[in-house]
Amino acid sequence: MNQESNGGFSVARVTRAWYVACGSRELRGEPVARKILGIPLVLFRGPDGKPSALLDRCAHRNAPLSLGRSAGGRLECAYHGWQYNAAGVCVKVPGLVGEAEKTTREVPRFPAREQDGFVWVYAMPDENPAVEPYRLPKPDRGYTEVRRTVEVESTLHAALENALDMPHTAFLHKGLFRGAGRTHRIRARVTRSAAQVEAEYIGEPRPEGLAGRIVSPSGGVVTHSDRFILPSIAQVEYRLGSENHFLITTVCTPVEDFRTRLHASILFRTRFPGWLVRLILEPVALRIFRQDAGMLKRQSDAVRRFGGEHYTSTEVDVLGLQIWQLLKRAEADELTPSEEWKREIELDV
Amino acid sequence: MNQESNGGFSVARVTRAWYVACGSRELRGEPVARKILGIPLVLFRGPDGKPSALLDRCAHRNAPLSLGRSAGGRLECAYHGWQYNAAGVCVKVPGLVGEAEKTTREVPRFPAREQDGFVWVYAMPDENPAVEPYRLPKPDRGYTEVRRTVEVESTLHAALENALDMPHTAFLHKGLFRGAGRTHRIRARVTRSAAQVEAEYIGEPRPEGLAGRIVSPSGGVVTHSDRFILPSIAQVEYRLGSENHFLITTVCTPVEDFRTRLHASILFRTRFPGWLVRLILEPVALRIFRQDAGMLKRQSDAVRRFGGEHYTSTEVDVLGLQIWQLLKRAEADELTPSEEWKREIELDV
Amino acid sequence: MNQESNGGFSVARVTRAWYVACGSRELRGEPVARKILGIPLVLFRGPDGKPSALLDRCAHRNAPLSLGRSAGGRLECAYHGWQYNAAGVCVKVPGLVGEAEKTTREVPRFPAREQDGFVWVYAMPDENPAVEPYRLPKPDRGYTEVRRTVEVESTLHAALENALDMPHTAFLHKGLFRGAGRTHRIRARVTRSAAQVEAEYIGEPRPEGLAGRIVSPSGGVVTHSDRFILPSIAQVEYRLGSENHFLITTVCTPVEDFRTRLHASILFRTRFPGWLVRLILEPVALRIFRQDAGMLKRQSDAVRRFGGEHYTSTEVDVLGLQIWQLLKRAEADELTPSEEWKREIELDV
Repeated sequence: MNQESNGGFSVARVTRAWYVACGSRELRGEPVARKILGIPLVLFRGPDGKPSALLDRCAHRNAPLSLGRSAGGRLECAYHGWQYNAAGVCVKVPGLVGEAEKTTREVPRFPAREQDGFVWVYAMPDENPAVEPYRLPKPDRGYTEVRRTVEVESTLHAALENALDMPHTAFLHKGLFRGAGRTHRIRARVTRSAAQVEAEYIGEPRPEGLAGRIVSPSGGVVTHSDRFILPSIAQVEYRLGSENHFLITTVCTPVEDFRTRLHASILFRTRFPGWLVRLILEPVALRIFRQDAGMLKRQSDAVRRFGGEHYTSTEVDVLGLQIWQLLKRAEADELTPSEEWKREIELDV
Repeated sequence: MNQESNGGFSVARVTRAWYVACGSRELRGEPVARKILGIPLVLFRGPDGKPSALLDRCAHRNAPLSLGRSAGGRLECAYHGWQYNAAGVCVKVPGLVGEAEKTTREVPRFPAREQDGFVWVYAMPDENPAVEPYRLPKPDRGYTEVRRTVEVESTLHAALENALDMPHTAFLHKGLFRGAGRTHRIRARVTRSAAQVEAEYIGEPRPEGLAGRIVSPSGGVVTHSDRFILPSIAQVEYRLGSENHFLITTVCTPVEDFRTRLHASILFRTRFPGWLVRLILEPVALRIFRQDAGMLKRQSDAVRRFGGEHYTSTEVDVLGLQIWQLLKRAEADELTPSEEWKREIELDV
Repeated sequence: MNQESNGGFSVARVTRAWYVACGSRELRGEPVARKILGIPLVLFRGPDGKPSALLDRCAHRNAPLSLGRSAGGRLECAYHGWQYNAAGVCVKVPGLVGEAEKTTREVPRFPAREQDGFVWVYAMPDENPAVEPYRLPKPDRGYTEVRRTVEVESTLHAALENALDMPHTAFLHKGLFRGAGRTHRIRARVTRSAAQVEAEYIGEPRPEGLAGRIVSPSGGVVTHSDRFILPSIAQVEYRLGSENHFLITTVCTPVEDFRTRLHASILFRTRFPGWLVRLILEPVALRIFRQDAGMLKRQSDAVRRFGGEHYTSTEVDVLGLQIWQLLKRAEADELTPSEEWKREIELDV
């Protein structure tokens, strides 16, 4: 690992990309403040109800526009009442005799879109995006979907690596997820294309620990894949036997260099009713998340205290380096469709 | 606006000037710690009861002298008992065989003066001030005076502009001060001389909202002036009819770059008894102040987060730029008596 | 005083030295996190029970190793379960097919030693120390020993100077230690050798104040010495008459530039039973410590706020400059055995 190993921080800022700013239902009548890649944004709905995202700073005296109010689909600053339309153009300066509209009174606008229950924002202002937001998987018949939003104090890369890293589960989540039982040698097939990388695990036994026993009491053949999709999606898929299917999609938002917001969609189908699985798994999932969030914070504290990362990796770190390379290419806007790349490794679980 | 618009902070540090350090009654037997322009000061009273201001740092081991005590008009350090007189000369080093007085043991002294109920300090050490502290207006017969000291988290300039800015009152103080009623076109006559700038509003209707209805239930002709006086005085004057007169003088102290202390003297005469007006207006004034302080803090947060101001102004920003230019000239010590300068603008209120 | 007077901070970082990391009894089954000279360390006991100190950062993903657990004398990281032996060599990477040991997976090891009830760490990693940890005085028959550990927010130098400074006791600890009684002129004989400096006070009256009255109600001849021993030991010795003997040894650990941990051993013999003296003196000592810690913190705040120290010294500052010079020489590793150096001064106490 290059950038990670020599003292810098593995922070990649992919700006030509869509990120979840908030849930659709969080943006109602009043403006909402959010941050993406360290940029303060104000979200509001225009006269047609469509979401709009502006830099959260009034052109006049730099008051946060998110302190203001929505005035008939225009955003009104709380300090002097300047009004902006959905495009960030100032359309009213109270008291001023004469025209309000003027280029110097405009506020940078970020493309915004509503899709799959989220308000998405493109992190590059005043630009026409060439891509579309990621489409979340939809629940088929017989599936239950649970959505959760949480925040961790870590870089986007550390959060993604953690979400798609199998080896840590046996230690950080000991007893909950994977246990300390017998070791099996399995294989992982890693496939990388231009915009994603996937690890497919072959020969994996049923996960041990409480979580495994609940979802598949009778054991069975396991199909398990971990997937990273640019710019910020982590996807974990489990099939146990023919009945059980879990698809956990985490859409990450890089709030600041060391703060990442995770929007998780958990789709599942088991032989038990959805409400029952949810009832049992939710506290387990919450505990797993808290352990991950705690460790990510301590890891962030450590790398900041030491002034940079000093990482070393092994074959068992199946996806970390691949994710990093994809992020750095996307940051540099070098997303030329590359040839598919494959490799197989062995590991003991 | 130049300095304000291109990413810097509108911080002017006028050091050859008198500022209010504290109220006369705050400085009694024991030393008091205050900060002006970021400089930590210790105030104490000499043997004659006159106030004295020294740098708040013992020459010996740099302990804050304000932790010490007054010993017969001398300031004694709490750590090793070194004693300083009103001129900052060390007159006693406990334990030392030999003379205490020595140039290296002196502490910088700032000129101090007691006037109009305040202790004033000149922000340049060991210098003989060529000017005198500002003289506050005195209450004539029939007038009531109220004094209040508050602190805001903003630059001196932002606090002054806020104090003398009419347009924001209709928005930030909606309902309290100016309302959302009919619009009147009025004129403002701006007059600038070497050390002050004033805006006189002509044709202004009686202020609407609660405050207006209280002070002048019957309406009447309004005379309204907003005045900035170097180095840090904001003055708002209202006459409504022949009976009602309000003169609000705010003497500001730049505590730090983003912290300003406001010492307000409110003089007024109405047809109602003073105590009654005070009873009714005090909660309103307090609420107005809290809204201003809240907005100034959010504005400061924003400009610091963005690494500088990115302002744009219109004709309606009547005094902001003038105040800034006077402050910058005073900072550079270029207070040559300039010719008087006048201009008239129109605005809708 | 040179380095101290021109705006820098009197911070000397003597790395080729042993410091107390923790008490023996603080290091049991589980790993312990400590900091020395700003370096985060993890302490744990190897299979033989001997203490070991590693840099508190897993070579893999930089998680603090102190979050982990001791696994049969090996330190196991809490994140992915990497295991390290007492030498900092990685001996297990869970999941990895193949050899775990590899130079890039090692963690810097700091020499560690257990002695006199403390775990000592040498502040230079992967080096063979040429010196041994300081040996604390042992209580002879009839002596009582009390141990206490406290922390102050100050540089090592400021803490040492404070611990060995007599003049401040009459002011900061007024009434508790020395009083405001009659002044006596005494002499101090200062002797400096390669690794220590000592001040012996001649003609000193019995300390006044509460502390003095307790330990020696009948007065008597006083022998008093203050001693600094490299790298970080302050020793105060009192004999009052033939019966009373106090030896206070404070072994300091520079935790960070402005944080110092003091490990005090108080040995004493009086004509009263040890438990009684302890009962009476403990609250007094605690109050003295709190006053010192409070002042050191305020002093640190002041020098940091002013961006450096601006000290001036007199003859009465008997040891401060000597301690500083010894520390700076040790930091530069110039500890050549110098000729003994003596001088006598007079002071009024």
